[in-house]
Amino acid sequence: MQDVVEGALATILRFPVKLTVAGRTDAGVHAAGQVAHADVPTAAWIEFSPSLLRRLAGVLPADVRVIAVGPPPVGFDARFAALSRRYAYRVADTTWGVDPLRRRDTLHWPRPLDVDLMRPAAAGLLGEHDFATYCRRRAGATTLRTLLRLDWERDAHGILVARVEADSFCHTMVRSLIGALMDVGAGLRAPSWPSDLLATAMRDPRVTVAPARGLTLVSVAYPDSAALAERVRHTRRRRTARTIGR
Amino acid sequence: MQDVVEGALATILRFPVKLTVAGRTDAGVHAAGQVAHADVPTAAWIEFSPSLLRRLAGVLPADVRVIAVGPPPVGFDARFAALSRRYAYRVADTTWGVDPLRRRDTLHWPRPLDVDLMRPAAAGLLGEHDFATYCRRRAGATTLRTLLRLDWERDAHGILVARVEADSFCHTMVRSLIGALMDVGAGLRAPSWPSDLLATAMRDPRVTVAPARGLTLVSVAYPDSAALAERVRHTRRRRTARTIGR
Repeated sequence: MQDVVEGALATILRFPVKLTVAGRTDAGVHAAGQVAHADVPTAAWIEFSPSLLRRLAGVLPADVRVIAVGPPPVGFDARFAALSRRYAYRVADTTWGVDPLRRRDTLHWPRPLDVDLMRPAAAGLLGEHDFATYCRRRAGATTLRTLLRLDWERDAHGILVARVEADSFCHTMVRSLIGALMDVGAGLRAPSWPSDLLATAMRDPRVTVAPARGLTLVSVAYPDSAALAERVRHTRRRRTARTIGR
Repeated sequence: MQDVVEGALATILRFPVKLTVAGRTDAGVHAAGQVAHADVPTAAWIEFSPSLLRRLAGVLPADVRVIAVGPPPVGFDARFAALSRRYAYRVADTTWGVDPLRRRDTLHWPRPLDVDLMRPAAAGLLGEHDFATYCRRRAGATTLRTLLRLDWERDAHGILVARVEADSFCHTMVRSLIGALMDVGAGLRAPSWPSDLLATAMRDPRVTVAPARGLTLVSVAYPDSAALAERVRHTRRRRTARTIGR
C-alpha cells in the first residue's frame, strides 16, 4: 500500500516521495485509519495541495484512497509521535457465512464463538508484557508492549468485533492474539490459556495466526501538538531497546 | 441472483427448484434483504433443512448468501403477500472518493450535494402517483405506485443515504428518483422539479438513472400471518390493472 501511494504522489508531483507510515500492515490487512508523512518542498505543496485529493483519487486504484492531506504541526512524525495504534477484527460466527458486502473485511468462522469466554481471556492480556509468544521473532527486537485495550462485542448485525489498542504491535501480534482468543471462544482452550502463554516468552506454535482479512487498522492516536516533540524523543529513546512502529 | 440460488438448491436437493422472489433487482443492484419462496416436497424439507444453510454456503459463490430458511406461514407468497419494499441508496459526495471497503455499494459523486435541497424535493414525491416519468415503459403495465418513504440523511461517516419505500416499484423507478434528486442536490434543478415532472406521466429523458452500484434492497415487509391470504388476494386483484412486484 505504501509503495502504491508513493507512486501516485510521484506521478502527480513529478518527483520521488518517501512516506513514513504510522502502522505497517501485513498483506491483506486493511488500513482505514492509516497516517503517513512526507517531506515535500514548499513550492510543490503550494502548487499541488488544492487539487491533491482529487488528483490522487484519479491516479490511485479503487482499493486505496487518501482521505485528507495537510501540513502537519511542528514536530510531527507519523511513526515516532504516535501514542497508540487501534485495530478492529471482525468475525462472523454464523452457519450461513458472511454478508457479501462485508466479506472482504470479515472472517467467517463457521461455529458459534462464546464471547463470555473470550472477554475474560482478553482482559488477562492487558497491560505491559513481553508478547514474544504472540510475535514473529526478529533479531535484536524486543517484544515488550503495552496492551491498552482488547475487548469483544457483537455489533448490531451479530458480527463479533474485537477492539485492540497498544502503544505499538510487533509482527503478527494482533492476529496471534485474536487467534488464541477465538480458540477460547470455540471452547478449545481455557480462558486463562492466552495469558498463561505469556510466561513462556517465546513464540508458541499452538497459537494460530488469525487470517489477515478480518483485521483493519482503525486509527492512530497522537498527542497534542505541544507534546509531539517530547513523544518523538521518548519513542526514539525506547527504540534503542526495541523495534517500534508496527 | 435468482438463478444462482435456484441452481445451488437444485444441486443440494437434486431436483429443480423454482423461486418466487419479493423484489427483482436490476444487474448490479444489491439485495441484502431479499425474500423468496419455493415449493419443496415435505420429505426433502425434512431431510435437508437441518443442513441447508451450511450446504448453501458451500455451493453458492461468495457474493451470494442465504441467511435463513424456514417453513412459511400458511398463505405466504414472497411476491404477492409483500406490503412494501425498502431500498437504500448510498452516495459519497467527497472529493477524495469512496471508502475502499464500501466502494461496491456506494456511488462516488465528486461534487458536494446539498441535502437541504434534496429533502423537500423528496417529500414532494410521497404518496400515490403515476410514476411513469420515472419508469421504463412496459406494454400493458400501469405505473401507479404509492411512495411511502423517501428521505435523505448523512450517516456517521458523512455518506448520504436515501431510504426509499413503496408498495412496489416499477422498472428503474428507485434509481430514476435518486438520479433526479441528486441533480437537485447538485443545484442543477429546482427542488420542485422532481414532483413537477410527475404531471407529464411519461418517461422523461432528462431524468438520469442513478448507477446500480449505490442501490440495495434492504427489506421486504409482510403483514401478520392472519392477514397474509387477504393481502395476496388484494395484490392479485390489483394485478389485473398493473404489473406488480418490483
